[in-house]
Amino acid sequence: MKLSVGIDIGGTNTAFGLVDESGRIVARGNISTCNNSDFQDYVNQVSDGIRQLLEQTNGAELAGIGIGAANGNYFSGCIENAANLPWKGLVKIVEAFKNQFGVPVFLTNDANAAAIGEMVYGGAKGMTDFIEITLGTGLGSGIVTGGKMLYGHDGFAGECGHVIVERGGRDCGCGRKGCLETYVSATGVVRTATELLAKHNIDSELRTIPNSELTALKVSQAAARGDAIAREVFEFTGEMLGRALADFVAITSPQAIFLFGGLAKAGEILFEPTRRAMEANMLNIFKNKTQVLPSQLGDDAAILGSAALVSFNL
Amino acid sequence: MKLSVGIDIGGTNTAFGLVDESGRIVARGNISTCNNSDFQDYVNQVSDGIRQLLEQTNGAELAGIGIGAANGNYFSGCIENAANLPWKGLVKIVEAFKNQFGVPVFLTNDANAAAIGEMVYGGAKGMTDFIEITLGTGLGSGIVTGGKMLYGHDGFAGECGHVIVERGGRDCGCGRKGCLETYVSATGVVRTATELLAKHNIDSELRTIPNSELTALKVSQAAARGDAIAREVFEFTGEMLGRALADFVAITSPQAIFLFGGLAKAGEILFEPTRRAMEANMLNIFKNKTQVLPSQLGDDAAILGSAALVSFNL
Repeated sequence: MKLSVGIDIGGTNTAFGLVDESGRIVARGNISTCNNSDFQDYVNQVSDGIRQLLEQTNGAELAGIGIGAANGNYFSGCIENAANLPWKGLVKIVEAFKNQFGVPVFLTNDANAAAIGEMVYGGAKGMTDFIEITLGTGLGSGIVTGGKMLYGHDGFAGECGHVIVERGGRDCGCGRKGCLETYVSATGVVRTATELLAKHNIDSELRTIPNSELTALKVSQAAARGDAIAREVFEFTGEMLGRALADFVAITSPQAIFLFGGLAKAGEILFEPTRRAMEANMLNIFKNKTQVLPSQLGDDAAILGSAALVSFNL
Repeated sequence: MKLSVGIDIGGTNTAFGLVDESGRIVARGNISTCNNSDFQDYVNQVSDGIRQLLEQTNGAELAGIGIGAANGNYFSGCIENAANLPWKGLVKIVEAFKNQFGVPVFLTNDANAAAIGEMVYGGAKGMTDFIEITLGTGLGSGIVTGGKMLYGHDGFAGECGHVIVERGGRDCGCGRKGCLETYVSATGVVRTATELLAKHNIDSELRTIPNSELTALKVSQAAARGDAIAREVFEFTGEMLGRALADFVAITSPQAIFLFGGLAKAGEILFEPTRRAMEANMLNIFKNKTQVLPSQLGDDAAILGSAALVSFNL
């Protein structure tokens, strides 16, 4: 049996799994990203986790390792200056895992990995032009045009979370202000909730939660219970996302945009205002042509997409 | 001798030419676009012009016709709902010219045609990832990624002039407000000049010109003579363009962005503030990597690019 390893490095957690040739995850593990600021320690922990999983498989052959990480560069094999990860500068992650396992290792943006997963296993099967938007700690995106991943000249294309949507707006982890991900992401939702608690003086169950304990999930649960401020948070989030999507459609004209990640699970309270704002801001030639859809891959997209890098490249 | 016809349909004028296999324009003509609101009359006039040119060539063979037009759809062969052209709705232009000449006819966006011209004959030779920005009556763009034209699922990708850069901003010909081309285009420059004449109460040679006679060329000439308001117009235009380019780089990561069209001839008074604003607004991973360059094709880019469609597709 040949197995590929898929590693999905998020700002908070790192998930990894062994994936068989049919696209099934046969074993999986998980460690903290944000509590591991020493990179070599982190690589050792992930590698130990992978070795433990491999020991359970009765001598399966390891074909290769695919890694999805913020600012992961397909061309250079480095994570380069990621705003939401604990390691600064150029991080030679492909080399680090090659040294551990002696097999081929491939790296791409975590959002590109999710897009590849969506195309191979999910809702984008058979599509040639779509965008995958990942809504986690930040906002990532993977753009597929004409059936190919859009990498750009340096491997870094698809940083849609860092399009500036509000001049002089919210501080972003990238050092600039007003980036889309400061409004549309799990952390963006919490910031919007905090802003609206200050703006309005009506009751809200969100007022009982300390700011440091407020999460996008808690806001979405409050919205589902009809909390007026929580509902306005998602109305605003959808408006900001929909406006930006109308611009992205004008540039790449995809047939569908998939929303992936924890925040996308909020469902129609996010999708409905997003679609409404997108269509309201759409250039006439694009109106009612681009679908906004939930990812069909759930939590496994990133691991599967990362693992799919191996078969794509060997 | 085999010749291709290249037709470049701009909002003001239509230029057409006979192009030989080495990429040389052997004869050319020109008619008004904006004064020809009857489409069939327009097609007859362009066709008569082409036939007159062909008569001068001593029986050269016509290989095909390539057309570049705003909202020209490569897939459908129609000009579809163009904001800056006199014909509304779906305009079957490929069919119209096939009926006239009985040869293969290909259509694309005027900006895509310029990008193809830049790639084949101009400054983008050997480049796989670049953006061509055309600055005429409006702002068009052609995006090349991985060596291929980015068409999107419906042929309409690359409408960068209709990214909204100012919510509730200037009225756009597309029916919305705040599109990039309302600020960055020949007409955008005139609007900015008019706005600054109202804002400031200092002297300016632009005050002696009626609003209806003000042109981007006159503003650039005034700026070259040191007129303070005219210089501020180009500072503002470059700022708006540079900000938008930083966003486009985040999405498609090109190695170069070429500026083409009448406004680009303003030279450093436009390029310098554009580059400065682009770098000031750039995400760190993209800083100092993308060149902003003048097109190397001059006025012939669009005719050559349109004609190049023929050899690309036969």
